[in-house]
Amino acid sequence: MRIRILVTGGTFDKEYDELSGTLFFRDTHVPEVLSRGRCMLDVQMDTVMMIDSLEMDDERRATIVARARDCEERAVVITHGTDTMVHTAHALADARIAGKTIVLTGAMVPYAFGSSDGLFNLGSAVSFVQVLPPGVYVAMNGQHFTWDAVRKNRESGCFETA
Amino acid sequence: MRIRILVTGGTFDKEYDELSGTLFFRDTHVPEVLSRGRCMLDVQMDTVMMIDSLEMDDERRATIVARARDCEERAVVITHGTDTMVHTAHALADARIAGKTIVLTGAMVPYAFGSSDGLFNLGSAVSFVQVLPPGVYVAMNGQHFTWDAVRKNRESGCFETA
Amino acid sequence: MRIRILVTGGTFDKEYDELSGTLFFRDTHVPEVLSRGRCMLDVQMDTVMMIDSLEMDDERRATIVARARDCEERAVVITHGTDTMVHTAHALADARIAGKTIVLTGAMVPYAFGSSDGLFNLGSAVSFVQVLPPGVYVAMNGQHFTWDAVRKNRESGCFETA
Amino acid sequence: MRIRILVTGGTFDKEYDELSGTLFFRDTHVPEVLSRGRCMLDVQMDTVMMIDSLEMDDERRATIVARARDCEERAVVITHGTDTMVHTAHALADARIAGKTIVLTGAMVPYAFGSSDGLFNLGSAVSFVQVLPPGVYVAMNGQHFTWDAVRKNRESGCFETA
Repeated sequence: MRIRILVTGGTFDKEYDELSGTLFFRDTHVPEVLSRGRCMLDVQMDTVMMIDSLEMDDERRATIVARARDCEERAVVITHGTDTMVHTAHALADARIAGKTIVLTGAMVPYAFGSSDGLFNLGSAVSFVQVLPPGVYVAMNGQHFTWDAVRKNRESGCFETA
Repeated sequence: MRIRILVTGGTFDKEYDELSGTLFFRDTHVPEVLSRGRCMLDVQMDTVMMIDSLEMDDERRATIVARARDCEERAVVITHGTDTMVHTAHALADARIAGKTIVLTGAMVPYAFGSSDGLFNLGSAVSFVQVLPPGVYVAMNGQHFTWDAVRKNRESGCFETA
Repeated sequence: MRIRILVTGGTFDKEYDELSGTLFFRDTHVPEVLSRGRCMLDVQMDTVMMIDSLEMDDERRATIVARARDCEERAVVITHGTDTMVHTAHALADARIAGKTIVLTGAMVPYAFGSSDGLFNLGSAVSFVQVLPPGVYVAMNGQHFTWDAVRKNRESGCFETA
Repeated sequence: MRIRILVTGGTFDKEYDELSGTLFFRDTHVPEVLSRGRCMLDVQMDTVMMIDSLEMDDERRATIVARARDCEERAVVITHGTDTMVHTAHALADARIAGKTIVLTGAMVPYAFGSSDGLFNLGSAVSFVQVLPPGVYVAMNGQHFTWDAVRKNRESGCFETA
């Protein structure tokens, strides 16, 4: 089984620009995370975009949906900013992509900052994607949720059943 | 669903003793890993023992088997040294514990050393344990293996289908 | 010899707020840095303020100058944002504080982000403050500069002789 | 002013071998430490040997003394295991090398383990070496000691005046 990972940015991949003192995107850290996890899965990774969750719009969502639909793999993991992850999950479900297990995940703290939940979440997402039946899911906080029964709790920063 | 985590030590939980320059065990890092992963699962953790994989013997395996069999939870994760993890998986399978999904995991690098695979592996193990059917499994390298079809490759340090 | 450390904030002490995705101040990390460095110096630390370098103004500089002048210790280290560190060094020099060695230092990357220069810089600053003659200095990039012969190079982020 | 750094190994440079579960030496981390510290000093580094402090003997000490004596720089930092650092300091002092400031430093925790004191200690050592008068010193725990008035306290792991 080969897994396709579609990278879209989000907190997961943010870095600190020491000259401006702001957060920005450079390259994705997904390969480094998989390497640190000694991941031996057959993974094909694409950087689809590198944007903040708040910049996500319908056009970009259409791009993500197309990439998830058109790739050969039946197991697809999408890294995504947490603020609009559920919205994108809905767009993916609306596309009625048959026979594919699609799992969205992300991070609350940038992987580059050392204390990130990204390593845990990606380990969780690549695991769920191998064994869950076809459908669209969010994998965060060690849990998996179906696209139509999940929301992000803005106060705790955690995902919960909606 | 509540998950029981049984801690037995292994590389996952080793620390560096700066006075003697050797590796040793103190408390388990599993709670810190779950906290860093912002894990919201209902988890009950027990430190069953804190030993090196090479110290594992039949008596200790019997203790682990008893703890996995006697706990209330139907989902059980066991952290274990990698060198004898498969051997303990066999002992668990031999006990024919009905109706439980048991997942063994561990790490190649101590969690305390910063570059560990432990965060990835525990994220993977708690995910697999929620969705795999009853049985005994090893979750390492982003993959899951059934107890009777896995071995550790001593040269690469990775687990593979046997 | 006792050393007084006056904490004023700056990048050194910034943290990531995972709910808002922005940088903010909580408590200073100076005690953790000294502890990690196994520092055995007699150190007295005060958090004078916790502000971004760009918020520094003449009133706040007057507060810092007063604290450096009025403390009992003859060795004073000040952690400070790098953008206006040289300006504050001038204010300290203008105060003509007799018999004291005052060393300003900071960081380009927050200590909390793991890859910070803060540990190196504080190790450098507490060393210079013990052996340099009375005066006002900036200790950054492994070097020490007198207050009237230093500037921050905005393009490289490094300090250099002016 | 150019600084010569002579690397001899010690805990500072130890790494974890994930296949054998033991500590070993590969390449020195001194360049990475200087880079993380955004060090702008003119530094010339040589790896003289990569050994555990306990393997240090008179022949190897003679090699270190020769390298410290023969290099062009008047400022020399030596990274060294902490257990026999004071012994090597004596050997350097016995050589009566005129006009050079020689500072030995090391670490209690390997730099590669994330929570190391190595970054702090190297920041301290390169600072002391620039301003102390000619002589042989140990720089540890934020302090500097002359070669003939220092010992390592085996119980605390800290250096103290002898």
